[in-house]
Amino acid sequence: MKTSDRKPRVVIVGAGFGGLRLARELRRAPVEVRLIDRNNFHTFQPLLYQVATAGLEPEDIAHAVRGIFQKQKNFQFRLGAVVGVDRAAKTVRLADGEALPYDYLVLAAGASTNYFGAEGAETYGFPLKSLTDAVRLRNHIIRQFEAADRDPSLIEAGALTFVVVGGGPTGVETAGALLELFEKVFAKDYPHLPVEKARVMLVEAAPDLLGGFHEASKRHARETLDKRGVEVITGAPVVRVTPEAVRLADGTAIPARTLVWAAGVRAAPLADALGFEQTTAGRIVVAPDLSVPGRPEVFVIGDLAGSRDEAGNLHPQLAPVALAGARHVARQIRRRMTGAPPEPFRYRDRGIMATIGRHAAVAEFGGLRTQGFLAWVMWLFLHLVMLIGFRNRLNVLVNWAWNYFTYDRGARLILEVPPEPPHGGAAPRQRSGVRPASRIS
Amino acid sequence: MKTSDRKPRVVIVGAGFGGLRLARELRRAPVEVRLIDRNNFHTFQPLLYQVATAGLEPEDIAHAVRGIFQKQKNFQFRLGAVVGVDRAAKTVRLADGEALPYDYLVLAAGASTNYFGAEGAETYGFPLKSLTDAVRLRNHIIRQFEAADRDPSLIEAGALTFVVVGGGPTGVETAGALLELFEKVFAKDYPHLPVEKARVMLVEAAPDLLGGFHEASKRHARETLDKRGVEVITGAPVVRVTPEAVRLADGTAIPARTLVWAAGVRAAPLADALGFEQTTAGRIVVAPDLSVPGRPEVFVIGDLAGSRDEAGNLHPQLAPVALAGARHVARQIRRRMTGAPPEPFRYRDRGIMATIGRHAAVAEFGGLRTQGFLAWVMWLFLHLVMLIGFRNRLNVLVNWAWNYFTYDRGARLILEVPPEPPHGGAAPRQRSGVRPASRIS
Repeated sequence: MKTSDRKPRVVIVGAGFGGLRLARELRRAPVEVRLIDRNNFHTFQPLLYQVATAGLEPEDIAHAVRGIFQKQKNFQFRLGAVVGVDRAAKTVRLADGEALPYDYLVLAAGASTNYFGAEGAETYGFPLKSLTDAVRLRNHIIRQFEAADRDPSLIEAGALTFVVVGGGPTGVETAGALLELFEKVFAKDYPHLPVEKARVMLVEAAPDLLGGFHEASKRHARETLDKRGVEVITGAPVVRVTPEAVRLADGTAIPARTLVWAAGVRAAPLADALGFEQTTAGRIVVAPDLSVPGRPEVFVIGDLAGSRDEAGNLHPQLAPVALAGARHVARQIRRRMTGAPPEPFRYRDRGIMATIGRHAAVAEFGGLRTQGFLAWVMWLFLHLVMLIGFRNRLNVLVNWAWNYFTYDRGARLILEVPPEPPHGGAAPRQRSGVRPASRIS
Repeated sequence: MKTSDRKPRVVIVGAGFGGLRLARELRRAPVEVRLIDRNNFHTFQPLLYQVATAGLEPEDIAHAVRGIFQKQKNFQFRLGAVVGVDRAAKTVRLADGEALPYDYLVLAAGASTNYFGAEGAETYGFPLKSLTDAVRLRNHIIRQFEAADRDPSLIEAGALTFVVVGGGPTGVETAGALLELFEKVFAKDYPHLPVEKARVMLVEAAPDLLGGFHEASKRHARETLDKRGVEVITGAPVVRVTPEAVRLADGTAIPARTLVWAAGVRAAPLADALGFEQTTAGRIVVAPDLSVPGRPEVFVIGDLAGSRDEAGNLHPQLAPVALAGARHVARQIRRRMTGAPPEPFRYRDRGIMATIGRHAAVAEFGGLRTQGFLAWVMWLFLHLVMLIGFRNRLNVLVNWAWNYFTYDRGARLILEVPPEPPHGGAAPRQRSGVRPASRIS
């Protein structure tokens, strides 16, 4: 603890892919690492849709941050929500009033949902960005089937119509998984219900699904979804959402009580509170080395960073970019401490992939392109490797594979947990007022 | 569906041990079974304390009711809260206004927490009767450590003092598990916190722990808890609870922000709403065959039933009694349909056991008594067999054993899920008003 007076303090905001990797990369650097997140766990976001569709349990894709860093001596975790940065004092301000000093600050707070101004979407749509979002959606989906089971007339009213908005990988994956849940599980769970009347619709504003993918991948995704029974509607922006219907730009109204909003992301709200220059969808403008222009001690990585490739295009908001950014910034901090000049961040695109459901996916790696079963196995393998890397236990593999292959699983619970302990004794109340920075470490 | 007009309808209220077993026992009986529960899952209550102390994941001890009965043709599940019974019309009234007709009604709604009038206990104490209770308590415990980690002065104020009230098996098990969580997991998770200052206190109003157990078992439990560091206080009723302290009858005030209330149970609130005669702690008075006196078509089983042994003592409120009651009532219903006279319910006590923590338990079977490691292995084995029987999948064994033996687990998440979908489209709103009974089936 004594040495913390000497060593530069690196404060990282966000325990997503970027934040976690950066903290880990700095494990042997002569710095003190402080990682802040509003949750005490890391969420493996690429598989949130599996939790929402009852394929995986919440604990399968989340891991306590403290558990990951138990053996890293120069690491400390801080549970809290960052509300601002005092650039003059070089402190990060937390919602509970505390001010955390930093020598280097790395913003890795990720992205939130972008509703593109669709009326009612934020109020009535279900986003899919957090573990809470996923469990809430799971609860809601099951409730619709329970409601229809006791009153089948609700089916006409849209109780079993599930509209997924957004034809990117998340939307495609969610639509495919919903249909499988209904056909493989709910058809048996609700023998008295005409489950075949359940509809899954995938609505996309652009003319195509999977924008950014190769023409052949797009076609394969669409054909696969068609064949499996997902109703795909493209070129159809959603303009209005109510609890009972989804209205498209052409005036069509779809009676539906569930709208999954997977149409896009924007920078985490924190980005708007900092006063840094922003670019498309709130991303923070960064210098080539990922630092904030004029603020060499502040870096931005991952979905929050408005970093660009050589052609001037914004990097995609994907986990690999965040991981590469983390490695880069770890290296820049080390260089900075030895007086070496900054290096520009370069992201080498390793490819993109999306799963369409069981035994179907598309994948593109440089010139290579594959689809169908092989692509699906690759997707499965890559996600398992990543997931196990984070959870660091073989057990997940067993559990995951079992759940995924057998559909014999316990995850379809309607589980509700009140957000605040309604009964006192709670920690995060007024108790912790502003206190001297020296108390933090 | 047509035959449902002919076959007697057995409505079972509650998907606990008794309700589930009864539904299953009736699978070949010429009846239609309707099982009602406010949750869509069965909770394996004996292991709730494991979820609260992050040893197991919620999904490990819960299973979707519909999944359990997928293959039972004469079974239907209804999600809902029973608020009353119309004895003249022979219908069960649900919170959403629907009235479910029955020919036989079996009340198996279980027990709720008994606060014995201790001031503030219901408001500030944490009960441990439902999965939500368990996750809420888990969230709260982790929050206390997070709060103390950022401000160690809170330790003096009771942030790391955990008072378990109730010296029965649940209290003993919870106290033991808390201490293990702190010593084996949190000591590593919070390297900057003096975790050894965390206190676990077990407070019991009676002079002894484990009332009902043999003198030697009581002694062993107390000695084991002492040795492991649980502070046991007996003969000390709790009279007042605030968010910051627990006050005992002798005036002692313990600064503590967490009170786990495991001091006792009373019949589920439903029992008070029915107008049937009640006995100790709200249990419904029953005839020797477990039917309600004067209401031969209404049965009560499990914790809700005020059934008695030959000596006139109330049966203990334990899972084995509920399971035996379920088998008995299934048989009585079958007999009733053939005109056979009712038989009295007899419960053969198979013994009692309680675990005190890793490698320590007490068990008593008739004249046989054992304690320590052997008793613990028996406890583990029995609970695994029961749990697997309900979940019906080997995977749980792997998961459970792995979690329990290695403590390398992902369950220590602060996971919150708002109780009602705040965004519309929700099912259980006003939508479903009262509708004709014929619509139900």
